[in-house]
Amino acid sequence: MRQRYKPWADDYLKEKNHIALENPSLNKGKWSSVFGNENPIHVEIGSGKGQFITGMAKQYPDINFIGIEVAKSIIVSTVQKVDEAGLSNIRLLNEDANDIRSLFADNEVEQIYLNFSDPWPKNRHEKRRLTYKSFLEQYQDILPDEGQIVLKTDNRGLFEYSLVSFSEYGMKLVEVNLDLHAIEDEKNVKTEYEEKFSSKGHVIYRCKAKF
Amino acid sequence: MRQRYKPWADDYLKEKNHIALENPSLNKGKWSSVFGNENPIHVEIGSGKGQFITGMAKQYPDINFIGIEVAKSIIVSTVQKVDEAGLSNIRLLNEDANDIRSLFADNEVEQIYLNFSDPWPKNRHEKRRLTYKSFLEQYQDILPDEGQIVLKTDNRGLFEYSLVSFSEYGMKLVEVNLDLHAIEDEKNVKTEYEEKFSSKGHVIYRCKAKF
Repeated sequence: MRQRYKPWADDYLKEKNHIALENPSLNKGKWSSVFGNENPIHVEIGSGKGQFITGMAKQYPDINFIGIEVAKSIIVSTVQKVDEAGLSNIRLLNEDANDIRSLFADNEVEQIYLNFSDPWPKNRHEKRRLTYKSFLEQYQDILPDEGQIVLKTDNRGLFEYSLVSFSEYGMKLVEVNLDLHAIEDEKNVKTEYEEKFSSKGHVIYRCKAKF
Repeated sequence: MRQRYKPWADDYLKEKNHIALENPSLNKGKWSSVFGNENPIHVEIGSGKGQFITGMAKQYPDINFIGIEVAKSIIVSTVQKVDEAGLSNIRLLNEDANDIRSLFADNEVEQIYLNFSDPWPKNRHEKRRLTYKSFLEQYQDILPDEGQIVLKTDNRGLFEYSLVSFSEYGMKLVEVNLDLHAIEDEKNVKTEYEEKFSSKGHVIYRCKAKF
């Protein structure tokens, strides 16, 4: 995602540190107390400007959402959306997701969303793809048995790779959709990328896979 | 596939019964002796007019191919192709594939091809789809451990269904291609349907799954 330098981002995030949490690893194993309820926790890795996660939070008030986004200048857009909408069931983490086990305890997360993740198309970058086996290992730890990953992308190579990677890892495909916008799914919350690329005629792929 | 009544089909198949075998279940467990060698055996279920299986037989002379096609008026086209090309590594079975275990012994087949199978789109016809679990059970018996199914179709619904069905059954996806003709695969032998539908702009899907 294109990043624009935002000199005010640091101060803004500090001001809104009830939404964009500082030192989030201190909450590992205690996320329910952060939200003040026992509702299930869903995590989006790479939450970008936040259209998806804020849309989901509005649609599902009984689920707690945590968005992880490494780019400070991008996550501020989500903080603004959360703040304006007064959503209490979202927290944002300005973190790298490479060591997600440092953020969540075993079984603490019910579902993980990977939306329009970087495809890293070169073979030598396979290990960086968020559906590479070393990431699946981490997801498996923080998810319960039968916990699901929901993957959405317009990138054919990443989608093909991910289906095989899930399968090789021993995960089961619960649902595969090879043209998401061809069906009427009123519950589908679109990401910014999804709107942009589907308007350009790209097919949107989605799958749900469980451990 | 459109069938045209061919009154001569019966006589022709009898004349060419060294290609289109009568009473093929008598060969169960003895297919190597039918071919006169120990080469691996690949089976296409629904071989249609035979462009795929005859193309494969030419490309892979060290593999024995068996095509199963229930429609007499269609299988005769394949018999003609085999006869004209003088291919010795193909046999054809004018049979229903619903009880494929009556035709092959355990582990007798190395690979199964399902090309442009009837998608049976209605939910109540799910059991008729060639990737429904009751068929997978049969394929598992006649294939060895790690034996593969190769599925090719332009039907999105059937492909989505099959990926999930393979996965639910415990099979592993070895390869998924969501636009086969976008890559240069010189070894890909096209079926009649594949040529027709890809020329109309349909995407061709292929996957390989193993037990």
